[in-house]
Amino acid sequence: MKRVNRASPNEIRLLIRRGGWDRPTAGLAMGYAQANLVILPERYAFDFLLFCQRNPKPCPLLEVLEPGKYRTQFLALDADIRTDIPRYHLYRKGKLEVTVKEIKNLWRADFVTFLLGCSFSFEEALLRSRIPVRHLEENKNVPMYITNIPCKPAGIFHGPMVVSMRPISPEKVSRAVQITSRYTSVHGAPIHIGDPSAIGIRNLGRPDFGDRVKIKKGEVPVFWACGVTPQAVVMKAKPDFCITHAPGHMFISDILNEELANL
Amino acid sequence: MKRVNRASPNEIRLLIRRGGWDRPTAGLAMGYAQANLVILPERYAFDFLLFCQRNPKPCPLLEVLEPGKYRTQFLALDADIRTDIPRYHLYRKGKLEVTVKEIKNLWRADFVTFLLGCSFSFEEALLRSRIPVRHLEENKNVPMYITNIPCKPAGIFHGPMVVSMRPISPEKVSRAVQITSRYTSVHGAPIHIGDPSAIGIRNLGRPDFGDRVKIKKGEVPVFWACGVTPQAVVMKAKPDFCITHAPGHMFISDILNEELANL
Repeated sequence: MKRVNRASPNEIRLLIRRGGWDRPTAGLAMGYAQANLVILPERYAFDFLLFCQRNPKPCPLLEVLEPGKYRTQFLALDADIRTDIPRYHLYRKGKLEVTVKEIKNLWRADFVTFLLGCSFSFEEALLRSRIPVRHLEENKNVPMYITNIPCKPAGIFHGPMVVSMRPISPEKVSRAVQITSRYTSVHGAPIHIGDPSAIGIRNLGRPDFGDRVKIKKGEVPVFWACGVTPQAVVMKAKPDFCITHAPGHMFISDILNEELANL
Repeated sequence: MKRVNRASPNEIRLLIRRGGWDRPTAGLAMGYAQANLVILPERYAFDFLLFCQRNPKPCPLLEVLEPGKYRTQFLALDADIRTDIPRYHLYRKGKLEVTVKEIKNLWRADFVTFLLGCSFSFEEALLRSRIPVRHLEENKNVPMYITNIPCKPAGIFHGPMVVSMRPISPEKVSRAVQITSRYTSVHGAPIHIGDPSAIGIRNLGRPDFGDRVKIKKGEVPVFWACGVTPQAVVMKAKPDFCITHAPGHMFISDILNEELANL
């Protein structure tokens, strides 16, 4: 295997396209933004686009393609949405049917592709400012929780916000807010700091998705809106058909995280 | 006439609803955000929403309503889009047909309402930081120019970006950038600073829309993406039917400009 860690986004997408990489993309193409994928038939597209417009923190749109289009224009110039993601999940009426490595044969002229920002981008920024990210230290998935905060509904799409949690030491919480505030297109500033019960989370030790992580004495739980929200909302709406990336198996873009930052 | 200058957004909307105010809204409800209006039949709505998503600087969406809905949920709790704007423009196939004071009788179940941010919000912030705004000093409309910068097309919508220009003294240009950077939902930071010819503007003394303003010796022309862009793009696409606000006759929201700021 080639030194995939050092490869460019385009080289990695080519490797994935040729079937040479079907594992998670965390740690690949460091510095470049990775994106969540949602593909929906056209009749759901306006509602979902509206849902994202109304809920930009959990659903930060990086790029939306016109019906039938599978080539990105903004995030990458030489990408094919049908082949360049390591693993896809296919859902029928909200139920996971199968996991596949490409969707060329399934492609339809009415498919609308949505690419959404991912927290990998701001975690890199936190690390650069020496703010430790616990689940990375522990080599785990970030812990995620279903809250009692309702998203703003749009058409058939509605549901609670899902958040990710990172324990931060008290003197670094301000800095963590400042840093992530710059990245509005990848979830932005925290939506809640402190008391988990205030947003309907009973037990930090039992996340709804991902892994539990150690919270050291005095550390503050800091909650960010999470990209699992749009997927949960889509599953709940039970569209006839939907394709997403498999968790952790993201689209790798040519856009630097720094290019996504506000200021 | 009541002291309309001191009235709350809701009081002013009521006054407009009852036919008691059909003039421009500049200077009313100071501190509160005003919004541009575009209403399109549903079959154009996905394309236009996508156009706004791809061109957030000229087309900063503040709120989009579902088909047939005429009550805002976010910008105001007690507003009626059909009556609460002082003057509406009705277009058929891209041509202005008539100006009216309400659209209750014209309303259709397939109308989708888009409300977009307006530069009034950031001008207030500039003034608060003692950065003079020339067209306000001269009691004129801001000068606007059609540039050679193409917007990113979406479906049937495409066209050049329209910009507004404010001359700023050199030592205040940085501060003007910093201040307006906070307001991404009302056009955000300038898109160009200096040489007008680089963006296809031949003569600052002859704006395409609005009024010419004095540029004092040494002042730098600073260009912001302008809310006339989406209107120009819609007119060019010639939809069967379209309703907008009449220029300067905006929707007055309950949201403070400061609530729209990033940081």
